[in-house]
Amino acid sequence: MKLSKRKRQPMLKEKIAENPFITDDALAAEFNVSVQTIRLDRLELNIPEVRERIKDVAKQQYDTVKALPIEEVIGEVVDLELDDHAISILDIKEEYVFSRTGIARGHHLFAQANSLAVAVIDDDLALTANANVSFKSQVKSGQRVVAKAKVIGNQNNRTLVEVKSYVDQELVFKGSFSMFREELSTGRET
Amino acid sequence: MKLSKRKRQPMLKEKIAENPFITDDALAAEFNVSVQTIRLDRLELNIPEVRERIKDVAKQQYDTVKALPIEEVIGEVVDLELDDHAISILDIKEEYVFSRTGIARGHHLFAQANSLAVAVIDDDLALTANANVSFKSQVKSGQRVVAKAKVIGNQNNRTLVEVKSYVDQELVFKGSFSMFREELSTGRET
Repeated sequence: MKLSKRKRQPMLKEKIAENPFITDDALAAEFNVSVQTIRLDRLELNIPEVRERIKDVAKQQYDTVKALPIEEVIGEVVDLELDDHAISILDIKEEYVFSRTGIARGHHLFAQANSLAVAVIDDDLALTANANVSFKSQVKSGQRVVAKAKVIGNQNNRTLVEVKSYVDQELVFKGSFSMFREELSTGRET
Repeated sequence: MKLSKRKRQPMLKEKIAENPFITDDALAAEFNVSVQTIRLDRLELNIPEVRERIKDVAKQQYDTVKALPIEEVIGEVVDLELDDHAISILDIKEEYVFSRTGIARGHHLFAQANSLAVAVIDDDLALTANANVSFKSQVKSGQRVVAKAKVIGNQNNRTLVEVKSYVDQELVFKGSFSMFREELSTGRET
């Protein structure tokens, strides 16, 4: 059902506040209006476009990646609290997909999630020991993948990190990463 | 203990026959001689260098990859029998490693193994549903990773593929890939 502009705009504002990474395309589908309408709504509400919103989130104070140089993280880190959680975004480029199906190749989603699992560790050295991953839904070229990493805890000298990746709030990838870290290997507990 | 040339050469020949992918460096370490000695041994025994040996293996008759264009396989496929087994080799380049530690990034080993698991499937469409992977030993720049995929069987509409990757016969990576394929999804059993 199409809502009136007066009803739509506050809901739109709320939706974007909930998920700053949502694209105009996704919003248009959500509210059953054209992308152009969403753009006009944003203009009236003074809400910047998604790229700018992401930069804003990124500018907010957050921890610095410790276990690897930030440029070695696959995707853009937009939130990080060491040993707690991290978020990164990855735009799926044409060259990331299988030519025949247009479906993103699994190792790109794996790379984003795995490097985020490394990045979230508060240690100078972090290496992946095990990973258990599921590809939940197909990702296509042009889509934006938001990966969310959460540190679950330490177990048997490993730190367990769970990563869930979404496209427009749909779960597309889920992984549990068991991370080796220097600190735990030397017997010091965090 | 250093062997005499007369004793070493037959053993060297046997070693290479067992594992055509073994490098001169690894052979030198194995026999406790210099790389130069290995090269001279190979010359006398008329055994080509490792690159040529790999090409020879590759030229031998094997099946053609079906589920994706061969150039989309990460690594070089050197043996393939569809729905049975496959072997690929990947040379770890400088850009595949973490700058700080020189250790190969997990997603490259994952990419090699995962694309081999796709390649071994005898179907026009194969996608990864789940993967359970372990990184067993660190791989450094310049090393050659030999991945061996084995089709274990079909279970719950998925084909299970096990991949083990080696550097000089040491296990460095192990993965179980649960593959979705068109054939099984339409109810036809292989």
